[in-house]
Amino acid sequence: MAEKQVKRTDVNVLGEFGLIDHLTKTTRLTNRSTKKGIGDDAAVIDNKGFLTVVSTDALVEGIHFDVAYTPLKHLGYKAVVVNLSDIYAMNAIPKQITVSIALSNRYSVEALEELYQGIHLACKIYNVDLVGGDTTSSPKGLYISVTAIGQGEKDKLTYRDGAKVGDAICVTGSLGAAYLGLQLLEREKQVFLANPDMQPELEEHNYLIERQLKPEARKDMIALFAKNQLVPTAMIDISDGLASELFHLCKQSNVGAFVEESGVPIHPDAQMQAINFNMDPITCALSGGEDYELLFTIDSKDIEKVKYLPDVYIMGDIVEQKDGVKLHTKGGNIHPIKAQGWNHFEES
Amino acid sequence: MAEKQVKRTDVNVLGEFGLIDHLTKTTRLTNRSTKKGIGDDAAVIDNKGFLTVVSTDALVEGIHFDVAYTPLKHLGYKAVVVNLSDIYAMNAIPKQITVSIALSNRYSVEALEELYQGIHLACKIYNVDLVGGDTTSSPKGLYISVTAIGQGEKDKLTYRDGAKVGDAICVTGSLGAAYLGLQLLEREKQVFLANPDMQPELEEHNYLIERQLKPEARKDMIALFAKNQLVPTAMIDISDGLASELFHLCKQSNVGAFVEESGVPIHPDAQMQAINFNMDPITCALSGGEDYELLFTIDSKDIEKVKYLPDVYIMGDIVEQKDGVKLHTKGGNIHPIKAQGWNHFEES
Repeated sequence: MAEKQVKRTDVNVLGEFGLIDHLTKTTRLTNRSTKKGIGDDAAVIDNKGFLTVVSTDALVEGIHFDVAYTPLKHLGYKAVVVNLSDIYAMNAIPKQITVSIALSNRYSVEALEELYQGIHLACKIYNVDLVGGDTTSSPKGLYISVTAIGQGEKDKLTYRDGAKVGDAICVTGSLGAAYLGLQLLEREKQVFLANPDMQPELEEHNYLIERQLKPEARKDMIALFAKNQLVPTAMIDISDGLASELFHLCKQSNVGAFVEESGVPIHPDAQMQAINFNMDPITCALSGGEDYELLFTIDSKDIEKVKYLPDVYIMGDIVEQKDGVKLHTKGGNIHPIKAQGWNHFEES
Repeated sequence: MAEKQVKRTDVNVLGEFGLIDHLTKTTRLTNRSTKKGIGDDAAVIDNKGFLTVVSTDALVEGIHFDVAYTPLKHLGYKAVVVNLSDIYAMNAIPKQITVSIALSNRYSVEALEELYQGIHLACKIYNVDLVGGDTTSSPKGLYISVTAIGQGEKDKLTYRDGAKVGDAICVTGSLGAAYLGLQLLEREKQVFLANPDMQPELEEHNYLIERQLKPEARKDMIALFAKNQLVPTAMIDISDGLASELFHLCKQSNVGAFVEESGVPIHPDAQMQAINFNMDPITCALSGGEDYELLFTIDSKDIEKVKYLPDVYIMGDIVEQKDGVKLHTKGGNIHPIKAQGWNHFEES
């Protein structure tokens, strides 16, 4: 007993993914309907061929958001969207959500109304129903945990483990903007704290700020896939940064990746802001996180289908696992990509 | 804008149920598959006749539990069980759960392991699969939100709104014990704080303590219903206290209730401890909460089926709504029952 009390491993030692692996490695799946448990963007429940896809994710004050610069309406919206993004990443359609909120008495009914306005708006825009949840007190801070439930078709669901050598690696949208938006907001917060009379200078950065505060999930892309009869071989949404997600996908598919820097889409505003911050734009794109774009692989026979899809970029190829995960820079060098998400960004 | 900043309604003004009503009254259900949204023990999703039942509930440190006397293994177990209870209350079978945990760095990996041991144990005992979730940091405290997903059959699901005049009111197990267990734990905590050398005197109260720290959901009862081809007309689980749940059921069914005090099951240990605490046992049973027993109504034709079911007590009748919700005391008086849950118990 005394020995047990002595042993104390700090949670940060294992990191988020190590921790989840560690805690769930003994998980046994016993129900026949459980087709896919922990380890993908969402779990899959198979009821006689009818597939239900489920994902849960929480946003915690002081960890995932700072109420100093996060409008509560945006926060409610984002809490829903980041979960819907996980359902889309399975090539499935979200239909319902439940929301669990804990908040301290620092928040008023009016604050909670704003939060719910954002939740309702996301439900409306993404055509999902808020079907349950609870609202409770917390001694401190605000927690929002959302569970999204979706529907998928057996031959269309995409997992992280389906990429194979020769597949093309694709990504939607643009990367790095949400991270740079966060840096801008943090900078303005520091300016404000130093001198509360200063007005924030954010208008010219609308795009970057919005990518951080009010991200969107790629519902449109899943619809485009269906319209073009395209089923990716593997897919994952980009919440922790392209590099980190690429490693998840490669690890689970037992493959490597060769990415062209010139193929990684970066918005001009993000490009410019990275340079203003003395950062390398490609590093922001690789490790920035919170983009909620889709990273996916396609069979080479489908390249023609993808070439003309709006906002989809082919940025490389799946290679043998032994060849690792590498970036071919614009300068002609080949670097191994590091599997770091935005949590580790500061240390890089 | 200035006006908006002035208006600040304290969350407690509306109460938990008032607050949820207020925030979700504008909720629109748009998906055909959403059969039942907010307002019952669980939501119901109907996919071509295949019914999925979903419930979410959170436990928050300092609000729902005190780590001073709550072993983390029990806490993990309880967090799962209280959600499974909601699924059983729909007369459905839970199959999967997702778990979202936020915790401060005061908790070590070993602490989290204990918590997960309890989660895994509950999964094993109730035959559900842990299929997803996330573990994240919190600036302070421990927060566990669980979503339970179950399966039901169309003609067997029981809602809160199906009770009709003439139905018998039944309850499982015994009531008030979990509340009295909590009072004992609180008392011992105060004794310990006053004098840390004092050893807690809890052995003789094992039953009450266990009802508080490690409640069980009535999986057995749902199996008995199926075996006896009994489908309650309405059902709800008792998390906030019999009185509060009876009001929910009556309100949604547009009926009243007439309850015999002599029919309300109270365990002898609870009876005795209530008296030791100078409390009225029936008040503890009505308003104590956290019993996780089932309150249900049955058609009068099914009374014979219920009479011989173990651990089921017939305690009254459903009456007209205009006749209210009343208790016929052992002393022969008739009192209106107050709709108070355990949160309001101290004020009574």
